[in-house]
Amino acid sequence: MSSYSKPCVLVTGFTPFDGESINPSWQLAQQLEGETLEGHIIHTKELPCEFDTSIASLTKAIDKYHPSVVICLGQAGGRCDISIERIAININDARIADNAGNQPIDTPVVTHGPDAYFTTLPIKSMLKSAIQAGVPTSISHTAGTYVCNHVMYGLLHYLSTHDLACRGGFVHIPYLPSQAAHHSGAPSMEIDTLVKGIKILITSAITQKQDIKLVAGTTH
Amino acid sequence: MSSYSKPCVLVTGFTPFDGESINPSWQLAQQLEGETLEGHIIHTKELPCEFDTSIASLTKAIDKYHPSVVICLGQAGGRCDISIERIAININDARIADNAGNQPIDTPVVTHGPDAYFTTLPIKSMLKSAIQAGVPTSISHTAGTYVCNHVMYGLLHYLSTHDLACRGGFVHIPYLPSQAAHHSGAPSMEIDTLVKGIKILITSAITQKQDIKLVAGTTH
Amino acid sequence: MSSYSKPCVLVTGFTPFDGESINPSWQLAQQLEGETLEGHIIHTKELPCEFDTSIASLTKAIDKYHPSVVICLGQAGGRCDISIERIAININDARIADNAGNQPIDTPVVTHGPDAYFTTLPIKSMLKSAIQAGVPTSISHTAGTYVCNHVMYGLLHYLSTHDLACRGGFVHIPYLPSQAAHHSGAPSMEIDTLVKGIKILITSAITQKQDIKLVAGTTH
Amino acid sequence: MSSYSKPCVLVTGFTPFDGESINPSWQLAQQLEGETLEGHIIHTKELPCEFDTSIASLTKAIDKYHPSVVICLGQAGGRCDISIERIAININDARIADNAGNQPIDTPVVTHGPDAYFTTLPIKSMLKSAIQAGVPTSISHTAGTYVCNHVMYGLLHYLSTHDLACRGGFVHIPYLPSQAAHHSGAPSMEIDTLVKGIKILITSAITQKQDIKLVAGTTH
Repeated sequence: MSSYSKPCVLVTGFTPFDGESINPSWQLAQQLEGETLEGHIIHTKELPCEFDTSIASLTKAIDKYHPSVVICLGQAGGRCDISIERIAININDARIADNAGNQPIDTPVVTHGPDAYFTTLPIKSMLKSAIQAGVPTSISHTAGTYVCNHVMYGLLHYLSTHDLACRGGFVHIPYLPSQAAHHSGAPSMEIDTLVKGIKILITSAITQKQDIKLVAGTTH
Repeated sequence: MSSYSKPCVLVTGFTPFDGESINPSWQLAQQLEGETLEGHIIHTKELPCEFDTSIASLTKAIDKYHPSVVICLGQAGGRCDISIERIAININDARIADNAGNQPIDTPVVTHGPDAYFTTLPIKSMLKSAIQAGVPTSISHTAGTYVCNHVMYGLLHYLSTHDLACRGGFVHIPYLPSQAAHHSGAPSMEIDTLVKGIKILITSAITQKQDIKLVAGTTH
Repeated sequence: MSSYSKPCVLVTGFTPFDGESINPSWQLAQQLEGETLEGHIIHTKELPCEFDTSIASLTKAIDKYHPSVVICLGQAGGRCDISIERIAININDARIADNAGNQPIDTPVVTHGPDAYFTTLPIKSMLKSAIQAGVPTSISHTAGTYVCNHVMYGLLHYLSTHDLACRGGFVHIPYLPSQAAHHSGAPSMEIDTLVKGIKILITSAITQKQDIKLVAGTTH
Repeated sequence: MSSYSKPCVLVTGFTPFDGESINPSWQLAQQLEGETLEGHIIHTKELPCEFDTSIASLTKAIDKYHPSVVICLGQAGGRCDISIERIAININDARIADNAGNQPIDTPVVTHGPDAYFTTLPIKSMLKSAIQAGVPTSISHTAGTYVCNHVMYGLLHYLSTHDLACRGGFVHIPYLPSQAAHHSGAPSMEIDTLVKGIKILITSAITQKQDIKLVAGTTH
């Protein structure tokens, strides 16, 4: 029985993109490597900020670790809190080229795939836990149309089309202060707050099999 | 042969909600009633700002008019431009009760329906035409989780599950100035600009059978 | 007795700057040329978007027309409503070069001048009138540190140091829609709304000798 | 010779207001009590969030400590970074009542005082130091019209009208994360980041007698 048969969680981050020298999603993931939450060891993986190869790298890690929960992290420069994504859509529409120089416009993530996948994480439970702990958190209804949404769709498609007892989703995080210092007007979040918040989200994702009803919707 | 066999477009707006005395979406739709664009007469319909009955009212109008294009309009207080929605998702998650007093939380629009439907309108062509004409317009990747998204999902589900030669989608519009005057810090758009913009969008929707490739995506 | 001895109002706008082909402030001022409000003829003047020469051009127009009210208009790209400036400060701190290529940093508008001048317009009365008429309007507590603030300070210094029965101030306006169409995410205001609003503000400035008490402050 | 004749800095914060149970400005100030920076001991003082009594409390502390630098801190809910205020204006215009129940509208801070006072701190040097250290910081051109501006004006008036070798100013800070968790959409900053940032600002204020030229202005 390999160590990978133990209950575990997979957390991914991305390589830097868009001119940044760091990506807070990978900075954050690294802080979690080897930690144990609710009896689950946390494994981490850095994904390239590239269309296609990012999904290949992710699914390879899933096959290796057999996690019961997968949370992919991504940088959302300009957002002010930890945002839990509700849905991934089957479109690539890149505002800028990815790190491999590709800029797909209005192509599907998966040809003939469904238009979207809802996350299988208990997002309202996760939201409630984080807010109660004093970590600014919200539900987001768009993961964008770049590599973050691409990976989230790829993850949920993989989990949906393979017989895996695994739930998955995506969480966007703000700039770190050291990044925001060079983006006038952009909010930020300190790494300690991010670590605290993401641990709460993971714990909730592990323990809450059924989500709760909680007002967190929008009017548009 | 009834007048309804002539080529036509259906444009809907909503009744006021959230304490407003008017809804700019219906103010705008009324300005278009009876107009002809590219040989298509425009019919309009006011939908109740209510879950379920709004979709019933919409599909009844579709059955009556047999439009080749349906564009549903909705108020997005706080947005600054005309935003063309790309996708509707199968969730009702109401931040406030609708006009009938119902506040569904995390229920499906259509039980066992797909997670989402992409609009069948040529959104990039529409965007390009409006920008070129000087009307502030953008692509939106979330129509929210309230009655607007609900109607958009209901529309696209109906078109998808019936054998109709009809394309459809949703367009959000800002407050009118008279509304924004009482919402400090909220942007607005004048009715004349809205009429100009929506006519351009309808014209593009009628004439562009294939959409164009245009950079209008996001990074998150 | 020259025509200039009749009661009049002077309204100024600026030439385009920062890569724009028009400046909404001058587009707006031109719409008012020759109009009569409350027995006051409106004269207009286009000021260069340049430090120093703008003030010289303004004071020359004041000497020519002997207005009882002066309102200088300026473009505030990114703001969503008509904002009435409360105060001008004695600093030039240019983020970009002006149209003459000068970029003063932390120099005074007037050497040994006071740190600031409050507008002498009845800003709360003006605000109330505009809101009641349904035109989005607010009080602003900073006119920035560029040519707009520079001209406002120059105006108020001139009125303060000369024995003139004249009140003056500055009003910032948003982009026109045709501009905002090329600044994704920027609010706009239609010229008709601007004309309606500025006429209300001028009328109030002429007729209200004493300002009213109205809650329109901030907490920071 | 009393301990108060040693070089020192006075840092003030406020009591909570507007329904909050804490005020980050006082949370931050407390972290600095008794620290020594560049040979200067830091003394702190909590000011009431009230018009008039706040200034009385401040000037009493100045008379007690004879500081060479005074920095007053205040909460700016909704701002995303540490903002160094450039100027205080001679107006009280309260959007909400203060903690004593008073809500002055358009009254002067000091009757017959000048319209405004520029801070006497080297704000561009302070800005540069903080940015270089990776702490999100900016220059602000309005401290509002509430108790924060009131105290800043009172401070600068006191320093200006007394023969004190002391420089002073005001710094606004964002919500703490624990506050922002309950203000959806509001940015926040962690206390550790605030402590790091304010120490840098104080150090710069002590050591930089002459300010530098640095582009940090606005266009409006």
